[in-house]
Amino acid sequence: MNALLTDLYELNMAASYLRRGMTGTATFSLFVRSLPPARGFLVAAGVESCLDLVTDLRFDDDDIRYLRDMQGFEARDLEAFRRLRFTGDVWAIPEGRIALAGEPILEVTGPLPEAQLVETLFLNQVTFETTIASKAARCVIAAGDRDVVDFSFRRTQGIEAGIDVARVSSMVGFAATSNVEAARRFGLVAAGTMAHSYVEAFADEAAAFRAFAQDFPGRATFLVDTYDTITGIKRAIAIIKELGLSGRLGIRIDSGDLVALSKRGRRILDQAGLRDVRIFVSGGLDETSIDQLVHGGAVVDAFGVGTRMGVSADHPYLDTAYKLVSYEGGPVMKLSRGKVTAPGRKQVFRRTRPFADLVGLYDEQVPAGTERLLEPMMIGGSRRGAREPIGETRARFKADLDRLPTGARSVSSPRPPVARSTAALRQLTQETRRRLAGLGFG
Amino acid sequence: MNALLTDLYELNMAASYLRRGMTGTATFSLFVRSLPPARGFLVAAGVESCLDLVTDLRFDDDDIRYLRDMQGFEARDLEAFRRLRFTGDVWAIPEGRIALAGEPILEVTGPLPEAQLVETLFLNQVTFETTIASKAARCVIAAGDRDVVDFSFRRTQGIEAGIDVARVSSMVGFAATSNVEAARRFGLVAAGTMAHSYVEAFADEAAAFRAFAQDFPGRATFLVDTYDTITGIKRAIAIIKELGLSGRLGIRIDSGDLVALSKRGRRILDQAGLRDVRIFVSGGLDETSIDQLVHGGAVVDAFGVGTRMGVSADHPYLDTAYKLVSYEGGPVMKLSRGKVTAPGRKQVFRRTRPFADLVGLYDEQVPAGTERLLEPMMIGGSRRGAREPIGETRARFKADLDRLPTGARSVSSPRPPVARSTAALRQLTQETRRRLAGLGFG
Repeated sequence: MNALLTDLYELNMAASYLRRGMTGTATFSLFVRSLPPARGFLVAAGVESCLDLVTDLRFDDDDIRYLRDMQGFEARDLEAFRRLRFTGDVWAIPEGRIALAGEPILEVTGPLPEAQLVETLFLNQVTFETTIASKAARCVIAAGDRDVVDFSFRRTQGIEAGIDVARVSSMVGFAATSNVEAARRFGLVAAGTMAHSYVEAFADEAAAFRAFAQDFPGRATFLVDTYDTITGIKRAIAIIKELGLSGRLGIRIDSGDLVALSKRGRRILDQAGLRDVRIFVSGGLDETSIDQLVHGGAVVDAFGVGTRMGVSADHPYLDTAYKLVSYEGGPVMKLSRGKVTAPGRKQVFRRTRPFADLVGLYDEQVPAGTERLLEPMMIGGSRRGAREPIGETRARFKADLDRLPTGARSVSSPRPPVARSTAALRQLTQETRRRLAGLGFG
Repeated sequence: MNALLTDLYELNMAASYLRRGMTGTATFSLFVRSLPPARGFLVAAGVESCLDLVTDLRFDDDDIRYLRDMQGFEARDLEAFRRLRFTGDVWAIPEGRIALAGEPILEVTGPLPEAQLVETLFLNQVTFETTIASKAARCVIAAGDRDVVDFSFRRTQGIEAGIDVARVSSMVGFAATSNVEAARRFGLVAAGTMAHSYVEAFADEAAAFRAFAQDFPGRATFLVDTYDTITGIKRAIAIIKELGLSGRLGIRIDSGDLVALSKRGRRILDQAGLRDVRIFVSGGLDETSIDQLVHGGAVVDAFGVGTRMGVSADHPYLDTAYKLVSYEGGPVMKLSRGKVTAPGRKQVFRRTRPFADLVGLYDEQVPAGTERLLEPMMIGGSRRGAREPIGETRARFKADLDRLPTGARSVSSPRPPVARSTAALRQLTQETRRRLAGLGFG
């Protein structure tokens, strides 16, 4: 990883720490302060990307030259940067697990300059991937037992974002993606049909459908709404019969009253004896419109979900923080108005029946009937185990989702469970507050 | 460019076209259908990235193998893909120019399969960069003659997005970025101070300020709100005096009542004879809060703008479309409800005084007193000229902004100018509609 992929202030602080020999052990806690209104839970993600990036964190010769010539760092800073590697520990909630606001998704413990330097990238990766995973999970919930397919690549915030959205949405149960490169890279199912332009490039709709069916006889999905949707459905049926098609066939409706059109489409297809031809709908969908379609009685086999999931359109970020909670063995906390951070290195304890999370101290005894959520992912700069296959992450998410209270899963008005603190954490918070007040910081 | 960075349906359609020899010349038009409520104009961006990507569009051996083994394409498709290069023309509105809804930002003209294949990436790049440029421009307008600095890297949608946000925000007048890699890559000014964790890592605030000032004596900006903001400002003043600092000095306030604190901070600094020490504010800012701060009388030299600009939080995408408008010399249009696209290859004509845009046909006579917005960027697959320095793009944006009606520039309730059609385009649209109706598509 290129160590210049960071904010300038991280380099300023790291240089200052290194000059002063302030390389004592620090713990930073990365968490989401509060949830957006339309979220009942988070799905932890981005941790694996952090581990990938930090494994080969280093300043190469070009980086050093740039910092010398253009940013004015001194020789002693540059020499320290040149030698710097990440030698710390990373504990994190494994990807795909459900998490709540206020509990650490990831903690970094290591020499202060190193733990500081990774702030920007760790925040970037965990914020983005957790934002998308949490949004995509709601789409999967809304769709119930119907398939959901990622169609977002054309409007994600860049190419890399599109690749990551395909991976992350797959982690929470998306059945396929339109993104071919992502499908190849992560072994996902690629899905795709035709665009309106395809239909328009032929003399008429029937010619377009016939051509497509001839070219992809076993996997033709006909986009039926370029001109008139019902006419389009009938034309698709005529072509299926004319060519005697079978296999994975479908129609796709991308506009109009999707409840009415899908019902009528199903009826027409069934009357034609084409019960196996699937109905695919798309067009500006998100979890709310999927929920409305399902409750409105739409007869749909699969939803194509694009932009609104791929950028998490209603809330395209999370209110994440990366806070120093411990330095040289002592707890640290910030007191500015409304942004109090609990001090100390932490652990999250989860009871599954009934569902309840407790945020406590790293080294306190595990409360009876709970499991630890934060696991060691990197120790002394060495990663423990490789990135797991997506299927395992998906299974982990599924298991967590099954145990989540119904209220948290609600699409229309989610009620997020609240993480509480253990007695030990509450006591440390009080003591630290009192100590800071005594120093005149109250 | 890796040709698998696309949606599967582009490959399906391209294969189908290639099999049938449907390689006639097509024109696709990329435009924004309508503006979000809080936008009065667009800033064209992303075109240069499209040109970079398409210049070396190709399927390598691994791509071909994947399409054969995992996606079931036939030998004849694979052979055609292997030979495929982009040989078309790209006309576009130059980056940094102001654009409106409904007018093409970019048009691709070339053999149908090639022009189809680039859809996903062209939409991705133009949507993302235009979204950010248009949002960032509003922050610059709101700040007036005060500096605006990009602080978004920690919460952009991925690393690549963060790099692009730094570049695009600089195009519309951001003074600096916190993103070191972006600063290096594009020759931007890098800016950065300290985090709250820096203050907390020392025994007390004064020790932290002293250390930072010793390390960066000529460019120290003190973050004053870790404990109590006014106390922090007084401590910063004491350290500046104690060490006799001079140069680019500042204080940063990241929380609280920024109007009141900045006013009081300015007064305290001035009373201490530190009129040159700048006041920097940050913390969840966007164009709306900047506008409120400015109108509320905040005394601020520079705004640090992060997440809300970096993901365009109120509207993180634009309603872009990439539509076939002409094939083999004939106009094409789609009639589905509410999504009519005007047919034919186009040009946009701009009158600057008073400001008015006309969307017309590519080859019609330039209306008197107007200039053409769409320029040839790539002809026959060859790029015309290299990517220009950011300074030129910035100057172009500035010139356009100066001529934009006040209503369009309004931060609180923008009134976007509406692009009208020329008589020739209206006539072609009517004729095409009549022809489609005659074919039974009405």
